[in-house]
Amino acid sequence: MKRHFSAALFALGALAAVSTSASASSIERTGPDNFPISSVVVIKSVGGVDFAYASGTPGAASAGNTEAQTVDALTKLLAGLKAQGFGAGDIVMMRVFLVGDPALGGKMDFMGMMAGYKKFFGTPEQPNKPARTTVEIAGLASPGSLVEIEAQAVRKTP
Amino acid sequence: MKRHFSAALFALGALAAVSTSASASSIERTGPDNFPISSVVVIKSVGGVDFAYASGTPGAASAGNTEAQTVDALTKLLAGLKAQGFGAGDIVMMRVFLVGDPALGGKMDFMGMMAGYKKFFGTPEQPNKPARTTVEIAGLASPGSLVEIEAQAVRKTP
Amino acid sequence: MKRHFSAALFALGALAAVSTSASASSIERTGPDNFPISSVVVIKSVGGVDFAYASGTPGAASAGNTEAQTVDALTKLLAGLKAQGFGAGDIVMMRVFLVGDPALGGKMDFMGMMAGYKKFFGTPEQPNKPARTTVEIAGLASPGSLVEIEAQAVRKTP
Repeated sequence: MKRHFSAALFALGALAAVSTSASASSIERTGPDNFPISSVVVIKSVGGVDFAYASGTPGAASAGNTEAQTVDALTKLLAGLKAQGFGAGDIVMMRVFLVGDPALGGKMDFMGMMAGYKKFFGTPEQPNKPARTTVEIAGLASPGSLVEIEAQAVRKTP
Repeated sequence: MKRHFSAALFALGALAAVSTSASASSIERTGPDNFPISSVVVIKSVGGVDFAYASGTPGAASAGNTEAQTVDALTKLLAGLKAQGFGAGDIVMMRVFLVGDPALGGKMDFMGMMAGYKKFFGTPEQPNKPARTTVEIAGLASPGSLVEIEAQAVRKTP
Repeated sequence: MKRHFSAALFALGALAAVSTSASASSIERTGPDNFPISSVVVIKSVGGVDFAYASGTPGAASAGNTEAQTVDALTKLLAGLKAQGFGAGDIVMMRVFLVGDPALGGKMDFMGMMAGYKKFFGTPEQPNKPARTTVEIAGLASPGSLVEIEAQAVRKTP
């Protein structure tokens, strides 16, 4: 008798574990304490996956042209995601905002951005390609920035 | 005998509840009947959380400058989310679109927007800070609007 | 005795099935092999639902004005989502980027876009309305495009 009961109780125990796991989702926000925006917000343990929302990250004017700024922005964006356990291959959606380059008569340097982007996505080392939207906008807050990039990523909950 | 059986059946019953809960996700759309856009779309009961997508909400021109319009836009946005059970602290991602202010020589008033934004986020009362992207755009549909804000929020399913 | 045991084991078996299902989430990326962007990224089996992120899709300049280009962009966007099993009624969030129309003195044709949009959303045949953000931007990569549209969709996992 005891034996049956413990089998049933074990089932209940395992069930409780599943139930706990299902309700153990949590939200973590990272970024500088003295700044009212999070660099990355992670929603953990949602049906077996974690979601990350990374803030728009501008390329530094000092990095140079649009291609160089794209590499700069992606390097920073990916570092922020990596600190939360997400890789470039986990990005599912990306939005790229380009500012017209005065050196190109005020036109956005779409090809320059693509040249920088292709160093990170769709390569032999990192074949995963995000969905993406790219538009030319009127301006960015950081002076001289020609590009700003935001991303959303999804990974299996470790 | 009956006792063992009911323990096992209870386990199955609890299991059925978990299973039902896991598949009970639903999508709710709110907004004016005579308008083809939802104000807020909520995806309920996804692995223990609810997701909300709130439409871009413009500041009213009558509110005044960019700071005042930001307060106006956020007040409306948060009211729409609150009606669906989401608080400001549940926002995980926000996108802010600024229009150049004619009163500032056509430049966007980024600092004005920040002043309005900081009344709602990263305060002692509401320390949760969303990830965010802010860009200057060419224009908005609503005449005289200097800012439009959209947000995504996540909360534990109540 | 055997009977009780098998009831308990059945409970465990069913439990294992739930557990497997919960961890069976996967990410699928579709689009041209020789292009570093996915047309649609689908995250499958997350707490009973699938999420889709569709890339920004421009209207073709050859389609005509903003209304015609909106129909063109949405037709392509919806075809891409349909190929992954998502319908127009599954879209939860949409972002519309409009470029000023030279034929209208450089102003965006918001009403033209709405006329195209309303053929697909909030109709008797397809009453589901997405949340949406619409802004006028400075430009798009594809020459002559007056509109680009991206979307996110959610459906119950089939």
